[in-house]
Amino acid sequence: MAKTAKPTKKVAAPAKKAGPAVSPLAPKTYASLPPLAGVRLATVAAGIRYAQRTDVLLAVMAAGTQVAGVFTKSKTASAPILWCRDKLKGGTARALVVNSGNANAFTGRVGLEGVQEIAESAAAIVGCRQQDVFMASTGVIGEPLPTKKITAVLSRLAEETAASGWRAAAEAIMTTDTFPKMATASAMIDGMKVTINGIAKGSGMIAPDMATMLAFVFTDANIPAAVLQECLNAGVGPSFNAITVDSDTSTSDTLLLFATGKGAKHGALNKAGDKRLTDFRRALDKLLLDLALMVVKDGEGAQKLIRIDVAGAESNEAAKRIALSIANSPLVKTAIAGSDANWGRVVMAVGKSGEAADRDKLSISFGGHVVAEKGMRAAKYNEATATKAVSGREVEIAVDLGLGKGAARVWTCDLTHGYIDINGSYRS
Amino acid sequence: MAKTAKPTKKVAAPAKKAGPAVSPLAPKTYASLPPLAGVRLATVAAGIRYAQRTDVLLAVMAAGTQVAGVFTKSKTASAPILWCRDKLKGGTARALVVNSGNANAFTGRVGLEGVQEIAESAAAIVGCRQQDVFMASTGVIGEPLPTKKITAVLSRLAEETAASGWRAAAEAIMTTDTFPKMATASAMIDGMKVTINGIAKGSGMIAPDMATMLAFVFTDANIPAAVLQECLNAGVGPSFNAITVDSDTSTSDTLLLFATGKGAKHGALNKAGDKRLTDFRRALDKLLLDLALMVVKDGEGAQKLIRIDVAGAESNEAAKRIALSIANSPLVKTAIAGSDANWGRVVMAVGKSGEAADRDKLSISFGGHVVAEKGMRAAKYNEATATKAVSGREVEIAVDLGLGKGAARVWTCDLTHGYIDINGSYRS
Repeated sequence: MAKTAKPTKKVAAPAKKAGPAVSPLAPKTYASLPPLAGVRLATVAAGIRYAQRTDVLLAVMAAGTQVAGVFTKSKTASAPILWCRDKLKGGTARALVVNSGNANAFTGRVGLEGVQEIAESAAAIVGCRQQDVFMASTGVIGEPLPTKKITAVLSRLAEETAASGWRAAAEAIMTTDTFPKMATASAMIDGMKVTINGIAKGSGMIAPDMATMLAFVFTDANIPAAVLQECLNAGVGPSFNAITVDSDTSTSDTLLLFATGKGAKHGALNKAGDKRLTDFRRALDKLLLDLALMVVKDGEGAQKLIRIDVAGAESNEAAKRIALSIANSPLVKTAIAGSDANWGRVVMAVGKSGEAADRDKLSISFGGHVVAEKGMRAAKYNEATATKAVSGREVEIAVDLGLGKGAARVWTCDLTHGYIDINGSYRS
Repeated sequence: MAKTAKPTKKVAAPAKKAGPAVSPLAPKTYASLPPLAGVRLATVAAGIRYAQRTDVLLAVMAAGTQVAGVFTKSKTASAPILWCRDKLKGGTARALVVNSGNANAFTGRVGLEGVQEIAESAAAIVGCRQQDVFMASTGVIGEPLPTKKITAVLSRLAEETAASGWRAAAEAIMTTDTFPKMATASAMIDGMKVTINGIAKGSGMIAPDMATMLAFVFTDANIPAAVLQECLNAGVGPSFNAITVDSDTSTSDTLLLFATGKGAKHGALNKAGDKRLTDFRRALDKLLLDLALMVVKDGEGAQKLIRIDVAGAESNEAAKRIALSIANSPLVKTAIAGSDANWGRVVMAVGKSGEAADRDKLSISFGGHVVAEKGMRAAKYNEATATKAVSGREVEIAVDLGLGKGAARVWTCDLTHGYIDINGSYRS
């Protein structure tokens, strides 16, 4: 399984913020994100939904910062998504305002007016154009956003921004997350080191359909918006678009990538295919995957991380649909939760995907142990081995359709009582 | 909500067979199914999977019985499905052999051989052609079917068949079902009364994709196979194909409809559109819906029946996809489980369906109380009223897209701890 980014410095895991116990899949230690030239951060507890919980983040970026983004494909996208999609056309950013506790989704005209107010306020305080203010909101859908609570704290936040606030930033955007999600990486461009820092939040309503949930990634590299967008589009497929917790797609999914250009003075980069970007893109892809996996590991109620590899499908697209059919099957997810090597449910999930499958060519393995092949239970099937393969914190399911060369990899978590506990009482 | 068929005679609800507590949505009394001319039934505990549980059903039908059927669309359909699909072409039936405890799915060549052995044995005992033997198996996937345990009991079963064994038949096909599912109806053809009896089993791996689960319906009317098939195809759309428990589609979904022609001597019926069939089709449609709703009411862990009506969509197909997106959303289902009027999750589920939706034209109501309209929370929204609407055993969610004339109705149940309990330990 992919490992999380090697931290530059180890620090103790922070205490949980609220809600259920910290996921057993949480990292034992967290990366200490280094300052990143051109980015300053501040957070505050503004009482958006709960008292004494940091819930507003302001990031201020240097003049000239370039921005790329991907957003939910939901037809009922939130007000901030509509704003960001439009402003992204300009390609530049100076401020990011994020709140947790309220998604400002399905809030009608009032929701759009709120976004406008925040943009006006932030622009005046930071000293930039409104179109350079980006926004995201996460939390309950359909409740009017208490806009004034946000605009009231922006001045103070702007005064308090610091280069060191990464962990606080990751904590401020949490909702039902049980641990903050952050990753850092470095890469070489023209022989000069650049840095990438990212934070994200999950942890229910997670199904990939462009970006999923909220993630904000910053680099001090100097990369034009169009090139940055190409890098992001390529990186999101095998990371945020390859994870699912519950098949539910958020109205607020936002992934923004900012490049301040205030780091090393490398040369101009005008094409995503430029070989001098190879190392940067590798580092970016890995960081996106690290963050995405943290989201799965903190899936509501998650006790196990499940990796699903599908090969031998008619196309990569078919492979991904089959992989997601398995990943989203409640019966597969509950079986894994119960450490039950119930591969029959994997057969079922392949069968219901609608994609071509030939029962007699299909093979399935758990943790490398072949459990089914040639249309039936494998001759060398061993119940103890199969059970062991689904009993740990990380479970690997591999399916080979035996039909073609299409392949895909997705990640999900198990479906447990914890999910029911959290989601049967979220609003109240 | 649709009511279950009015029983011809009320009898006490049977004690639960095994597993978790009887669903709170179970009928208080059961229809006592009358004898049906041309059908004799017998059941036995053959030890297919569990001891002392009836698990094999034999139904023997009169010579000349016509048959229609619909089956799962799964690409990994079970061995009995492959057999039935092929034999259905003949249009005639004399025997039905059903076992619970083992699905005979993904059992390879051995599974197909087992089906052949059962057909040979049943044909010899009943005195019919092999092609007139129909079969269904339900239970765990991937385990070799203990064929000999079935063939060993067929002679005895044939001797013991009786016209009165409907309740025992409904009980013999149960797996994780908490109550037997049966319904009866009568209709007039040419002024003469004909009878329809049906039994079904659920109760997980339920998502409509042609038929869902096992259901066997018998009538003493005299209707040719081709006409019967047309009636069945029309009836299955708004009944078995409009229910979902967990979005997982079984490899064994089978719905068979037998017409013995041994009842009233009505005239020949050569077209499904024949007006003399109107009353029969009405009764059949209602019986299919009754059975389908019992399956939802016994969905694994179900505490509430949820009806979802979508109107104003671009087409009926779009409406159904939106309705199923809501019905299959774990977040909607857990919210209802928690009596949380979280209509934002309905917005989310509409948004993720991929179908056209205009946030500002969408309206949502719970139990007739409008909770959202014009892109935001309804002006007259009342939290207490909304909460009351989702707090009972039956919940009604209505969505109007405001775009066109497409409409659909589907049913599902809530997602509770019971589902996790049952499915985290099914095989063991």
